[in-house]
Amino acid sequence: MSDTTFDRPALEQLITKRFFYAPSFQIYGGVAGFYDYGPTGCALMNNIINVWRNHFVLEEEMLELDTTIMTTEEVLKTSGHVDKFADWMCKDLKNGEIFRADHIVEAVLEARLQGDAQARAAKTGETVKNPVEDKDAKKKKKKKGTVVAVELDDAVRKEYETTLAQIDNFSGEELGAIMKKFDIRSPESGNELSAPQEFNLMFDSMIGPTGQLKGYLRPETAQGQFLNFKRLLEFNNDKMPFASAQVGRSFRNEISPRSGLLRVREFTMAEIEHFVDPENKQHPHFADVKDVTISLLSKDVQLSGNTHLVEMTIGDAVEKGVIDNQTLGYFIGRIYLFLLKIGIKRDRLRFRQHMDNEMAHYATDCWDAEIKSSYGWIECVGCADRSAYDLTVHSRRTKEKLVVREQLETPRVIEKWQVEINKKTFGPKFKKSAKAVEEALLSYTDECYEKLQNALETEGKASVEADGQTFEVEKNDVSVSRGTVTEHVREYTPNVIEPSFGIGRILYSLLEHSWWVREGDESRNVLSFPTIVAPFKCCLLPLSGNEAFLPFVRQYSRQLRKNGISTRTDDSKTSIGRRYARNDELGIPYAITIDFQTVEDGTVTLRERDSMKQIRDSFENILKILKESSDE
Amino acid sequence: MSDTTFDRPALEQLITKRFFYAPSFQIYGGVAGFYDYGPTGCALMNNIINVWRNHFVLEEEMLELDTTIMTTEEVLKTSGHVDKFADWMCKDLKNGEIFRADHIVEAVLEARLQGDAQARAAKTGETVKNPVEDKDAKKKKKKKGTVVAVELDDAVRKEYETTLAQIDNFSGEELGAIMKKFDIRSPESGNELSAPQEFNLMFDSMIGPTGQLKGYLRPETAQGQFLNFKRLLEFNNDKMPFASAQVGRSFRNEISPRSGLLRVREFTMAEIEHFVDPENKQHPHFADVKDVTISLLSKDVQLSGNTHLVEMTIGDAVEKGVIDNQTLGYFIGRIYLFLLKIGIKRDRLRFRQHMDNEMAHYATDCWDAEIKSSYGWIECVGCADRSAYDLTVHSRRTKEKLVVREQLETPRVIEKWQVEINKKTFGPKFKKSAKAVEEALLSYTDECYEKLQNALETEGKASVEADGQTFEVEKNDVSVSRGTVTEHVREYTPNVIEPSFGIGRILYSLLEHSWWVREGDESRNVLSFPTIVAPFKCCLLPLSGNEAFLPFVRQYSRQLRKNGISTRTDDSKTSIGRRYARNDELGIPYAITIDFQTVEDGTVTLRERDSMKQIRDSFENILKILKESSDE
Repeated sequence: MSDTTFDRPALEQLITKRFFYAPSFQIYGGVAGFYDYGPTGCALMNNIINVWRNHFVLEEEMLELDTTIMTTEEVLKTSGHVDKFADWMCKDLKNGEIFRADHIVEAVLEARLQGDAQARAAKTGETVKNPVEDKDAKKKKKKKGTVVAVELDDAVRKEYETTLAQIDNFSGEELGAIMKKFDIRSPESGNELSAPQEFNLMFDSMIGPTGQLKGYLRPETAQGQFLNFKRLLEFNNDKMPFASAQVGRSFRNEISPRSGLLRVREFTMAEIEHFVDPENKQHPHFADVKDVTISLLSKDVQLSGNTHLVEMTIGDAVEKGVIDNQTLGYFIGRIYLFLLKIGIKRDRLRFRQHMDNEMAHYATDCWDAEIKSSYGWIECVGCADRSAYDLTVHSRRTKEKLVVREQLETPRVIEKWQVEINKKTFGPKFKKSAKAVEEALLSYTDECYEKLQNALETEGKASVEADGQTFEVEKNDVSVSRGTVTEHVREYTPNVIEPSFGIGRILYSLLEHSWWVREGDESRNVLSFPTIVAPFKCCLLPLSGNEAFLPFVRQYSRQLRKNGISTRTDDSKTSIGRRYARNDELGIPYAITIDFQTVEDGTVTLRERDSMKQIRDSFENILKILKESSDE
Repeated sequence: MSDTTFDRPALEQLITKRFFYAPSFQIYGGVAGFYDYGPTGCALMNNIINVWRNHFVLEEEMLELDTTIMTTEEVLKTSGHVDKFADWMCKDLKNGEIFRADHIVEAVLEARLQGDAQARAAKTGETVKNPVEDKDAKKKKKKKGTVVAVELDDAVRKEYETTLAQIDNFSGEELGAIMKKFDIRSPESGNELSAPQEFNLMFDSMIGPTGQLKGYLRPETAQGQFLNFKRLLEFNNDKMPFASAQVGRSFRNEISPRSGLLRVREFTMAEIEHFVDPENKQHPHFADVKDVTISLLSKDVQLSGNTHLVEMTIGDAVEKGVIDNQTLGYFIGRIYLFLLKIGIKRDRLRFRQHMDNEMAHYATDCWDAEIKSSYGWIECVGCADRSAYDLTVHSRRTKEKLVVREQLETPRVIEKWQVEINKKTFGPKFKKSAKAVEEALLSYTDECYEKLQNALETEGKASVEADGQTFEVEKNDVSVSRGTVTEHVREYTPNVIEPSFGIGRILYSLLEHSWWVREGDESRNVLSFPTIVAPFKCCLLPLSGNEAFLPFVRQYSRQLRKNGISTRTDDSKTSIGRRYARNDELGIPYAITIDFQTVEDGTVTLRERDSMKQIRDSFENILKILKESSDE
């Protein structure tokens, strides 16, 4: 549901001209999905990250980490990424061109629906609204295949629409069936396509010279945080709950990247892993956000085929069970406040709950902060409950205990399965697998113990999976019984609530939300960033190249910097008016002009970007104004 | 020349215990050359980077970029890294174990020299000083092979010492010859080793699903800056000189990483590319650094077999030609001031000029800021003159002009070779290679034109290499002559001065320079970081778990944060004395203690880390003190 009235090409032109970002290796022709940030984009990103760090890490004393991007295969095999972090691709059977399966289905069906609309319109004499013509239009048309005005059966049209609505949720097999059913071919060559195959989205490489040790570029920063859990808990003096955090680069080897910064192969993320007691998801600072009102789109509403937003306070949402618990609610509130602070518009921000079939393999509940841009509603922050998944699998694989041990004030008596291994029979019977069989029996779930007990009692034996084989244990090898034990220490694996921020997506959305065009003799672009994230806070403009201005430029820029106000000097030979216009395009909130009166009396002109209001005062007073504005 | 009296194991223990950094994937056994930074190390690194950004980027309005880590093969082929960025490795011929050739030569010869020293000492009854015993000692001994007390001939000993002194400068062939000559075998197995083979140090991967597009993880951030030169110059309103800068992760797939943070496979760099007119390397702010006195070790001094440091002002060094030009001198001075600012000790910092045979393939001159630690003098910042190398090769490869066009105030008349191509004969004669032959002829050097003219005049023909073939041009195909032209615009490829900072190496050196042990009842570690880079500026300590202290903790920590003073709350149940000791180990300069008097009158105790001096005052006054200290 992209917005076709938004003049995206004009914004894109501004982004390139003012070097917010541009395709990487462009002089070599570029490669899809890679972008370089220029001086403005880089400063904007650094400022967003700084606000993020203050808002989350420093405010809540989170434990920030900086772990490696290169990750060994074993780690990502355990986390499930080697097996499950994949998309479906299909190949043109004649020319070998590769497409992402869901994208090709989407493109072809959308083209057919558009053709249908044109055919129907032609019958009634109407014209069909065309999307704004943009530079890529020709290329896109080619990618989607030429739209041919062919009317479709009502039933077929309906079926296409239903398919498109669910496009994110199909398995590879389902996508294959759809492609067969609707005879979907390459829109470029018209050739048949292969059945969808899995393509793992991680970049791989070999570590060291042996060619034996495989590594991947991390697809998220989270795993590095989980692997350090034990050290982090210790660093936190064993106190729970606590959060770790990390800002850094991650990678996804997308099959066919598109949509600019929204789907790239290399990107900066900021992730928080909040470790919490699964039996107590209260949050100590919940009161700080409970009265914040947000727009919600819950799972239930979506399942009823609706996208109607509900306005609700976070307190109400948690109380009514729309949001599962306080901790999840707390972070949703904090994410909301962060996004508003950096300049995201309230009316283009919503929180959408994932439906069961769209969740990542590790998540049990997930809310996305979605920001509306000309591309539609786009996930920019995920807030997932990863439960105890990651700590459990890493612990099981490494035999390292990743748990919290809580000293109980009053010991508690609990019912528990107890297992006794008969070491005497185990050794001779299972030989070198004895240890593995023992470990398997000790790590059973309650349900399994019940079955085991049952089997041993009724049949005198039971089978056990260990070391990739099946063994048989008999009554005298092992005994299980349910009994009470007194615990002085409670041991548990924490659950993880994970707010995960795609910085590039947020940055792009912010560009759209901040951009407007000032009408006048010629219309001029303005980027109205809040001062807190603006790439530069102030621009220094000497009226001309006159040498008399030089000492003032140097002195003022020093003083501005000393006060933490990042400054850009524009002493090019262009007129002041044109230079103001350039500042507006760079999103610089203030400009200070140095002229001949400055030389006489030390006063300067301050111009504000959005209102264009100008005042004249001593440099010292102007500095005070800027400092107050930056400190806000 | 590592320092064997420094108690490195004790510092390493502190680093791990206080989680400055630790081996990555440690619960999976770890992999050499990868480290994760914990909360203290990460904050320390962020603070170092912030000081760097203020000192260089903001102070001088450099254009900061953020380009991709993944880089296409074509770019790195052109830059020379695919062919030349390699180390020499050799293989155990029986068990396949791989060693870095220069390291193995070094280890074996050092072991033999140590054995010689032991044998000689045994004769005279002396004992040989042993390095401080450390945890890794056993492992290291094994790596180096057992030291056997065998006396060497004086001549052999001398030869070993000479070889070790030049160990960084040998080619693969030379290393192979040395290995043969001295019968160097695997110290672990005693097996023979293969001849040294080149191993490229870049991690590679495939971009996209086709398996056709190879990429590498960048070995430096510089290439991303060069590729964007044209945009940067435009952004800078075509003004020269200017600098771009970048902070980011780079990768080197080391054969056998060692020495902790000093030689790793993934690391954070901060790099500046200063683009300058090759005919004018004056620097506008040179006066700011000309009186700074630094310790220098020039190429000439080293070539005379000396390592004697010379103290000199930068002004003198440039004037005397020790440092080639003002721009290089300016950056050496700025690097020096930066390193002192973050806490590197003056007497353990020197600038060493590279000798011709140790320079990277792209450099024409290079000075390293070397910091002394227990590992010896280690390169932590390189300051290289890359001349016009990178811009020239990328421009030649892409046909994109990467030049500066300078409008000349008065036109100048210069002598120049002029080439005229006879289009009429070119097309029919060279067919589809006509364009390539023309381009080849147009891009000749002066010397080549002279040869060409000569050949055409004496023989009537000459050969030209183009498209990978050799063509023959005759007199009527092309004419070359030397004549005068009047230029209104001067076109030139800028030279690049590159200060390149290894953040991890600087951070490790700073840990060594900041660490000392306070004597007392029990000796206690202190890390005396300057406030500006300390991981946290202040620690808040409620005297006990009493509920009366809670509101004060929350209020004070808020106020501290609001004033930009990063704060860690330590409300664990340990005694105040133990908590002070913990702060000292974390390098936190100030601690504020909240006690019962605070509840009564709002006063708190402030303790300073290094002096342990305590004062009591109202929180507001203490806050003022901290703010002044942080702003410094």
